[in-house]
Amino acid sequence: MIVLLTDFGQSEYVGVMKGVIYSIDGDAKVVDLCHDISPQNVIEASWLLKNNYKYFPKGATFCCVVDPGVGTKRRALAVKTDNYYFVAPDNGLLWETLKQARIVDIRQIPVPENASRTFHGRDVFAKAAANINKGDFEDLREKVEKIEKLELYQQAGEGIVVRIDRFGNVITNLPASAPAPVFRQEDAGARRSSRPRQDKDKYSVEINDKKYTMNCYLNYDAAKDDELFLIEGSSNTLEISLKNGNANENLRAKSGDKIKIS
Amino acid sequence: MIVLLTDFGQSEYVGVMKGVIYSIDGDAKVVDLCHDISPQNVIEASWLLKNNYKYFPKGATFCCVVDPGVGTKRRALAVKTDNYYFVAPDNGLLWETLKQARIVDIRQIPVPENASRTFHGRDVFAKAAANINKGDFEDLREKVEKIEKLELYQQAGEGIVVRIDRFGNVITNLPASAPAPVFRQEDAGARRSSRPRQDKDKYSVEINDKKYTMNCYLNYDAAKDDELFLIEGSSNTLEISLKNGNANENLRAKSGDKIKIS
Amino acid sequence: MIVLLTDFGQSEYVGVMKGVIYSIDGDAKVVDLCHDISPQNVIEASWLLKNNYKYFPKGATFCCVVDPGVGTKRRALAVKTDNYYFVAPDNGLLWETLKQARIVDIRQIPVPENASRTFHGRDVFAKAAANINKGDFEDLREKVEKIEKLELYQQAGEGIVVRIDRFGNVITNLPASAPAPVFRQEDAGARRSSRPRQDKDKYSVEINDKKYTMNCYLNYDAAKDDELFLIEGSSNTLEISLKNGNANENLRAKSGDKIKIS
Repeated sequence: MIVLLTDFGQSEYVGVMKGVIYSIDGDAKVVDLCHDISPQNVIEASWLLKNNYKYFPKGATFCCVVDPGVGTKRRALAVKTDNYYFVAPDNGLLWETLKQARIVDIRQIPVPENASRTFHGRDVFAKAAANINKGDFEDLREKVEKIEKLELYQQAGEGIVVRIDRFGNVITNLPASAPAPVFRQEDAGARRSSRPRQDKDKYSVEINDKKYTMNCYLNYDAAKDDELFLIEGSSNTLEISLKNGNANENLRAKSGDKIKIS
Repeated sequence: MIVLLTDFGQSEYVGVMKGVIYSIDGDAKVVDLCHDISPQNVIEASWLLKNNYKYFPKGATFCCVVDPGVGTKRRALAVKTDNYYFVAPDNGLLWETLKQARIVDIRQIPVPENASRTFHGRDVFAKAAANINKGDFEDLREKVEKIEKLELYQQAGEGIVVRIDRFGNVITNLPASAPAPVFRQEDAGARRSSRPRQDKDKYSVEINDKKYTMNCYLNYDAAKDDELFLIEGSSNTLEISLKNGNANENLRAKSGDKIKIS
Repeated sequence: MIVLLTDFGQSEYVGVMKGVIYSIDGDAKVVDLCHDISPQNVIEASWLLKNNYKYFPKGATFCCVVDPGVGTKRRALAVKTDNYYFVAPDNGLLWETLKQARIVDIRQIPVPENASRTFHGRDVFAKAAANINKGDFEDLREKVEKIEKLELYQQAGEGIVVRIDRFGNVITNLPASAPAPVFRQEDAGARRSSRPRQDKDKYSVEINDKKYTMNCYLNYDAAKDDELFLIEGSSNTLEISLKNGNANENLRAKSGDKIKIS
């Protein structure tokens, strides 16, 4: 199985990558993880991959193309871990995912002479993914020792926006179980020991030089209309939401923006 | 075959649901019916499902996730009809579809203790759809007698907007064959006895406190540029269109808005 | 394999076409080439098909639906070439692609009496594609001698915008290897003899009654921020780009607009 993750949106670029894959292996199974990564936003891609690869069957090959450096000398990587394969430009996209996995081997994917200088998704990564998926990882001869590092910034109560989803939820990388005042210990009897308590307590949220005071709820339904609130999202981090509305129409945040919650 | 219908747009949420399905059944066939349901718009999802499920092969399992009540006590349903399976939150989404079908059985899908409170598409519905598609419907033990009702409002000449499509067509649930003055009986000799006649007669359209006068045409080409007009859409209901343009840029309608045509 | 190319965007119309295909042939392999063709923009569809069909496996059937004339007497075509099949309305969409291929046969697809007058994607083209993909091309009895012509305008240094991609790149049909001053002969020693040279020379770009002076770069990284520049795109034509930005937010071009580069 080949899983695609790109910032190509609804462009034909995704379709062409599939054409390339099927031309190499007519029996390949290709799945779209996501293509609406914000253009060139490696942070967002890194977050999405890190949190979601584990929902796919073992043995899957992830083909990740968010590649502002296309056409330069940046390397193209193929990584084998204990359970998956990953193909991506060497720009940090894979860093957070590989921190969680056991790396077996990293190889460099050669860029053909006649590759386009703007579309390695088609000319480099789709081909590599198709071949790896067929079992040809070992054909990549050049070993790689060190790859680009991209840590998603996070320390006590401070983190970053990592994704705006379709509903306008502002997703952060701040664990819902961490910063003390948000996650009351007296809530320990709840379904998860560290879940935020649904209460009237206010939390302070700082983002883009503005301060907000927000409640934290257990589900969307508990919030009032027109009220920005905190909630534990599906990757167990804090999100800012607006019930039956779009939180980010107010906040205007982008993936990569710093955020502080206390 | 599993058919997905959600309001997840281009988000990764759709991709993750597929990962979950393939992890349960690597041979599953998964098809996207539509993911750009307006956020939380159960009416729109209800309309789309009702009109389109019948175009899919018998035996298909529809996995429908438009779920503003996620994380509350609303039930998760699995329905077996004579020809299809349906999985959805119990919020009325399935009502109109099930009115047309012969219901064989309705069961409740249990929500696991550790399910996210914001994403049952991944933790409840995708899993259930994969298992049902594998033949395990009977494993759901808890029978359901009564489900939430959601009728799409319609009476003589009055109905609702049920969908805005990509072209800006404002789709209503008013049958093109019904309200008398729009659908001339003298047209009975045409290809369908009750088709609207292409003529210069004007029809009165009331929507969002505004009144319009519109012609009704047999195809887009017959209309003039810059003219809002009525046409019979592909689900045999009336739509408001603008030739080579976007009707809803003028009308600013939303699914659920009342509309009156006479 | 059936490859879909439409202007249906994220609408349910694509999903329904797949339902129709799978109802005819449950084993069909269906791939999305692209669905975000600008509404009714046959030029854009023509360009995308022409440049991308060759990336798909031989034998594929392309089902192309950009069809402003739906419901009129315009014909529905099925074309067999030496390597592929194509299904589309007879509105010029296939012209540029067929200029490159060896046409074996062109047949007319009959429109059923009860076909919708707004959605032949479902009622005509998806069905035809499914049947052709199953090997039933010869069942189409009516031969077609002449089809609609649609040339993508291009002469020395003058051409048209053929596509705006997800990144806001303004893609033209002007070959990157053609107009003399842009493509220096002294660059002949480079990877491709006619590649544009990365240099400080300025080129004149005329579009929508405005004139710009732009550099031409070998890759995105070489450009400065906030600088509109020319680059050779992945179909070997000139594109206007903005590094880490959206060129078309400035240019406001549409597919079909004339452009002059010297």
